Formats: sequence, C-alpha cells, structure tokens
Amino acid sequence: MDPIERLVFELSKLPSIGERTATRLAYFILRQEESQVRDLSEALLKAKTSIKLCVQCMNFTDAERCSLCSNPSRQTGIICIVEKPSDVMAIEKSHRFHGRYHVLHGLLSPLDGIGPSQLYIQQLLHRIENEDTQEMILALSSSVEAEATGVYLTKLLKPLGIKVFKIAHGIPVGGVLEYLDQQTIGRAIENRLNSEG
Amino acid sequence: MDPIERLVFELSKLPSIGERTATRLAYFILRQEESQVRDLSEALLKAKTSIKLCVQCMNFTDAERCSLCSNPSRQTGIICIVEKPSDVMAIEKSHRFHGRYHVLHGLLSPLDGIGPSQLYIQQLLHRIENEDTQEMILALSSSVEAEATGVYLTKLLKPLGIKVFKIAHGIPVGGVLEYLDQQTIGRAIENRLNSEG
Repeated sequence: MDPIERLVFELSKLPSIGERTATRLAYFILRQEESQVRDLSEALLKAKTSIKLCVQCMNFTDAERCSLCSNPSRQTGIICIVEKPSDVMAIEKSHRFHGRYHVLHGLLSPLDGIGPSQLYIQQLLHRIENEDTQEMILALSSSVEAEATGVYLTKLLKPLGIKVFKIAHGIPVGGVLEYLDQQTIGRAIENRLNSEG
Repeated sequence: MDPIERLVFELSKLPSIGERTATRLAYFILRQEESQVRDLSEALLKAKTSIKLCVQCMNFTDAERCSLCSNPSRQTGIICIVEKPSDVMAIEKSHRFHGRYHVLHGLLSPLDGIGPSQLYIQQLLHRIENEDTQEMILALSSSVEAEATGVYLTKLLKPLGIKVFKIAHGIPVGGVLEYLDQQTIGRAIENRLNSEG
C-alpha cells in the first residue's frame, strides 16, 4: 500500500467514515501544512497514551482523579450513573447536574456476554460507604440493555438504602408530536406531570 | 486543554467534522488498542511527509514519478486534465481512460486571486512536446470556475494543434428526470446523441 492508500485505510476504520469520506479526508490532510498534520498525529497518540480511568468515577482523565472528582465545589452524596465517558460530557453541557458521576463503561448485555462483573459496578458499591452516597440517578440511554441495566442497579442499590432515580423519558425539546414514534409518545403520556401555571 | 479536548479540537479541523462528530471520534479512538491508534497517527504523518508531486503529471506520489506516469502500458499522447489528485482516483475507478493525467491543483478563480500562473499549466505545456501529445480531455467539475478554466485551456491548447475534448454533461446514471435540476436536463438535451439500436 502506498502512503495515501494506507492513510485512507486507517481513516476508514473510524466509525461512520467510509472509503469515500476517508479518501476525501486523506486528500484534505495532504493539502495541509506539515505542522498541522503533526499536531493531529500527536494529539491522537497523546490522548491514547496519557488517558486512563479516574480511580474514583472511572471517567477518562490524564490525572489519577478526574477534574470532576477532584473539584471540591461539586456536590457529594449524589452520583449520576452513565454508560460511557462521552455521556458525562453530554450531561455536563446541560449544566443541570452538580454532583459526581460514575461511568459503567458498558451496559448489561447477556447475549454479548456482558454481565455485571464486566462493568464497573463493584467500584460503584465501594463509593457508597466511602462517599456517604444517599442518591443515585440512572442516566442511561433508551434501549433494552439500558433498561436491563437500570433494573439490575435499582434492585442492587435500593436495599442498601440509596434513593435511586432515573432520568425522564418524553418528548425531546423542540420535538414535533406527529414526527415522534409512538413509543416516545406513549412514555411521555405515562410519565405525565402536573401542569402548573 | 486536556488531551481529550485537544484531540477533539484537532479532529474538528477536518472538513465536515463538527465538534459533535469529533467528540464521538475521540471517544472511539480512546477505546481502541494503542497499536491501532499508533497506526493511524503514523499513517497521517507518513502520508504528509513522504508524498510529493509527480514531476510529470503533478499527481501525488511517494516516488519521483507516479505509478501512472511510470506505467509503460498506459497510452501516451493523450492527457486527461483534472483539477485535483482525488479526481485522478475517481476517473481511474471508472476504468474508461487509459492515457496519462495532468493535475492542475486548482481552477482559475480571479476573485480568489487564482490566475493561470497559480496552476500547473506551464508544466502541461512542456508535456506537449516532450510526450508528443495529440489529444487532451478536460475532466473538470461543473462550476463557473471549471467552465472558465476549460475555456482558457481550450483557447491555449487548440492553436498548438491539440485536439481538446471535455467530458460530457448530462443525466447521471440512475438519475430520475423529475428530481434533476433544470440546468442538468437542459445540458442533456443540448448534448443529445444519436439514438441507436
């Protein structure tokens, strides 16, 4: 393989990047200054080699403890449980949660051989005592695996005296009723709230 | 910037990759094996540092002369003129052209300050004598700049005794008439061919 073909091949391994897009990216990269390509090349390797899991919440970090866990102004006693590190970033952007996180790095999926021991659940249990946790919020996506993981964690945590919540399902902001699927609408009706004002 | 933010920042400089996609790619990359990330990182730098322009056709190559120019089974005397290296790849995939190429690396665009001297036109003229060129095919996209470049090259090359062609404009294969714009349909009618069989 010549260097262009090899670059196209490597780029097309990325998700949602087919051969066509990879080719376009490769030719774009060849038109850039060498210093810019070097920046990207180094950023890739640097991210991969320096990033590890926070000892407390299992989020990605380049320190022992992530910036959220080591931030003293974050609320303690309340933990938001998410599937993966990018979910932490998504929730942080909403500015509506000020507690700590815990990243499971996956969801229960018996068909794929992923059971509780493959997720960071043991580490979560350790945190209940260490951090005097009273409340947990399950912030999982909407899928069969997420549902199963939520049920499992609820059954596990409630007997320990933890208040367990899950994020609401309903009409997304800006959602147009006639274009939404019936399950979303069904959930939104089931979970209806008192209308005020 | 922490290493993840830096990677997202660098990735989002790529065309059609916004912050959201860059974030998704960055987290995907963090989940890969280090060796795979290293492959991509090296492929980027290797492509950029080893690729230069073919001395003959100005296409990208890692040798002095590209694999097409140094292939003795390619037809000589006929040159296909394209805007950029990726166009060569696109035409090669059609398997319908067996001559040589010449890459202009741009199109005439007076508004952007791109005149004939910014394109590899001088090198094209050199090839007429050196390679005993009789025929050229303008394989340019459909845009005002492409049109202007085509007119300029035709006026330049015809007096030198070169037969100058341009690729056909018309209905794309699989094109549905009612969904095509009127200009494409207009061109297709103007350029109608004798119907045979």
